[in-house]
Amino acid sequence: MAHRWERSVMSISTGSRFSGLTPLLAPRSVAVLGASSDPTRISGRPIAYMRSQGFQGGLYPVNPNRTEVQGLKAYASIADLPEVPDVAIVAVASEVAAPAVEDLGKRGVKAIVMFTAGFAEMDESGEVAQAKMVATARSYGMRILGPNCLGVFDARTSYYATFSSSFDSGWPVPGRIGIASQSGAYGTHLYTLARNRGIGASLCIMTGNESDVTVGECIGWLAENPEVEVIAVYAEGIREAPGLIAAFEAARAARKPIIMQKVGRSELGTKAAKSHTASIAGDDAVTEAVMAEFGVLRARNSEEMLDIAHTATRKIYPVKNTLGVITVSGGAGVLISDVASDVGLAMPEMPEASQKYLRGLVPFCAPRNPVDATAQMGNDVTLISKFAEAVVHDGGYSSVLGFFSMTASSRRWPMIREQLNLVRVKYPGRLYALSIIAPRDRIDELEAEGWVCHEDPTRAVIAIDAMGRFGTAFA
Amino acid sequence: MAHRWERSVMSISTGSRFSGLTPLLAPRSVAVLGASSDPTRISGRPIAYMRSQGFQGGLYPVNPNRTEVQGLKAYASIADLPEVPDVAIVAVASEVAAPAVEDLGKRGVKAIVMFTAGFAEMDESGEVAQAKMVATARSYGMRILGPNCLGVFDARTSYYATFSSSFDSGWPVPGRIGIASQSGAYGTHLYTLARNRGIGASLCIMTGNESDVTVGECIGWLAENPEVEVIAVYAEGIREAPGLIAAFEAARAARKPIIMQKVGRSELGTKAAKSHTASIAGDDAVTEAVMAEFGVLRARNSEEMLDIAHTATRKIYPVKNTLGVITVSGGAGVLISDVASDVGLAMPEMPEASQKYLRGLVPFCAPRNPVDATAQMGNDVTLISKFAEAVVHDGGYSSVLGFFSMTASSRRWPMIREQLNLVRVKYPGRLYALSIIAPRDRIDELEAEGWVCHEDPTRAVIAIDAMGRFGTAFA
Repeated sequence: MAHRWERSVMSISTGSRFSGLTPLLAPRSVAVLGASSDPTRISGRPIAYMRSQGFQGGLYPVNPNRTEVQGLKAYASIADLPEVPDVAIVAVASEVAAPAVEDLGKRGVKAIVMFTAGFAEMDESGEVAQAKMVATARSYGMRILGPNCLGVFDARTSYYATFSSSFDSGWPVPGRIGIASQSGAYGTHLYTLARNRGIGASLCIMTGNESDVTVGECIGWLAENPEVEVIAVYAEGIREAPGLIAAFEAARAARKPIIMQKVGRSELGTKAAKSHTASIAGDDAVTEAVMAEFGVLRARNSEEMLDIAHTATRKIYPVKNTLGVITVSGGAGVLISDVASDVGLAMPEMPEASQKYLRGLVPFCAPRNPVDATAQMGNDVTLISKFAEAVVHDGGYSSVLGFFSMTASSRRWPMIREQLNLVRVKYPGRLYALSIIAPRDRIDELEAEGWVCHEDPTRAVIAIDAMGRFGTAFA
Repeated sequence: MAHRWERSVMSISTGSRFSGLTPLLAPRSVAVLGASSDPTRISGRPIAYMRSQGFQGGLYPVNPNRTEVQGLKAYASIADLPEVPDVAIVAVASEVAAPAVEDLGKRGVKAIVMFTAGFAEMDESGEVAQAKMVATARSYGMRILGPNCLGVFDARTSYYATFSSSFDSGWPVPGRIGIASQSGAYGTHLYTLARNRGIGASLCIMTGNESDVTVGECIGWLAENPEVEVIAVYAEGIREAPGLIAAFEAARAARKPIIMQKVGRSELGTKAAKSHTASIAGDDAVTEAVMAEFGVLRARNSEEMLDIAHTATRKIYPVKNTLGVITVSGGAGVLISDVASDVGLAMPEMPEASQKYLRGLVPFCAPRNPVDATAQMGNDVTLISKFAEAVVHDGGYSSVLGFFSMTASSRRWPMIREQLNLVRVKYPGRLYALSIIAPRDRIDELEAEGWVCHEDPTRAVIAIDAMGRFGTAFA
């Protein structure tokens, strides 16, 4: 796929609640402290990424031992920089991090992305050092992302304040999903899974120890960012409830769905979170209640997270969601019915007259809903548009799921697809999903047309149900 | 991948409880009633598949209107066949199915695979016709698979008594998983998902209406079949409890894990099942209790089914399962801890001395379990074997999960893999799993070495836990 990024200037309103994070998350200029000439090293990667992808702002390596880094003029100190950068990436040893923060504050830098580890996540002395560093930053009105964080990237603007190695296997796919994650490795794991599925998650913020900037604030900033339509969150513990609640409010007001993987539920998980990002997982039930209040959905794993986030980019959030199912497999129909029942997604029966009409077309079909047109659809493909139109028009469902299994790999598929599209085009405004197994290029075609594709029908049902939950929250 | 099938003769003991199904499921000779010259038609596909894949037994088209079908001599009637076939595939209209059954019985055929639909799944008259047909077959001691079924295939012997179109996109991968499914379309959906993941599910039986042969009997036959090591089941309703229980007993005695997707749990699902394969889903709680008694695991969806079935082919079923985790992401460690806690998989702490040793190697690591070696492993890959050996040897866990995320796509991966294999080879008999994102060829290499690979860590944990449940059931 050949994509072009629109590199327009970020247009988040400057007076808005979370606009204070803009110098950190969408800077006009970036300094890199301890910048390495080796593009594979932690302190060399941000410059390598930004140069390779064409970051348009100022980019300033700071390294007292070099006059040039990766083709850019290097500066001996922060004081020597030709302009005050919006943000500085700090990739130095923990012993020299504190004086660096002081220097950055003196120069008037607005924000820091601190990769350095060995603070609150390690031991008490680390906690003390971290607290002192934050106090210094605050005295200058400077914000800190991290420490012990993997940073942030925005593929649209080619801002890569991160040392993630995930770009070794490819650059982001354009799209409207923003990720906010306390864990760097898991945030990029999620981003990589998205990219490999062709799902556009092009903005990713990883907060690490959250000595200052919290995941809640990042959610708020994403909610105010017009380039982002869906927000995916990974959190181990909530440090600051008012910020999170304000962010949830901002997202709901902007009709932007949030899907959240909140971990550290169990005793063991809570212990692991404490030694990871120094999180106190807190009362999971409280978080759950707040999430429910604002219509934030909880994902059980990364696949559910991406299934829901991707489906949400279609921006169809029915207030009263109903599911109509058309299937070539009665078995899949039973399975889908079970899952819909589990999650509470209504599958009303087809109108009697319509059932009679369908039985007239295929005597041994099951027309109730799920509508099983049986393998007969393979012998006469025109049955597909007839059955589909009955489900969409007569049934009037807000969401429609077609189970077509491996027929999508068959020679007849172009005809089947044409039949399905006849109905989809005629009745816009519904959520159209398919459970199919097909080569990537066929999936890409369908997705471009507006279908949401899943291999597993249970995953499709869960994602469709989520859209109704968002619809209710936004109503 | 170039695979060779071993086409040895089936060696299921002839006196065993389920050996009566052998003429149906592993026949020496096959007749096809109503055989078509068109290899894409329902009645043409079985011959096309068996010829293309090299079925070694007798293959006899029966068609009064032709002297030759797809290059084979055709016979005008069943009476004209040069030998009595073990099985006959019936792909004729429902009106002529009954006399065909009579003719087959008279000739001494032992079994029928009946594709024809329009019986009990349709209406009461269909129920009556089906009952009469079964009575006829029983009077001759003849077994019927179906009607309204997609048949059976065994890729090892190239027996394809099926009209599934799933082979349009590829032939089965060799392997030891057998599938028994009441739904044909869903059975082949499952098989296709397995094949696309490189998982060997080479034997698949689809029972449809179960007028005679039940899914329970098929499970029993798979349990007695030495070529099958793991059994995957899709069921909508249980028609005959004693057969199912005997099958569960046979599988447990043979230490063969069964994973079952039992659908028709909900009221809506039960209705859909009734119109699909004329199933009465029955009391789901009873089925659940029987499954639990015999250590049969319930899969929530097709992915969980295949995850567990595939992991089970490693044949490591710990009686007291414990999980040791080595990770490059603290976040993934928290997530894994939560899921292990949810499913009840023990993750005991590492011994104190070993934790101290690991802290000596990486001061800011988290050595408790999950063992988070941090991104430091990327800077010094020899840390990987040191950390892994500590987890495997000192921790003594029966199952080990490594979360390596996208490092498996990095340039350093060959070194990382070598480090991991040092430990795996030194300590055999454990279950070794990886949560990684990597290109297919790298996954294939790892799987061939004995690793089980998952992208999502939660799915890995669920599959690992399942092995302990099988271990307990087999003990």
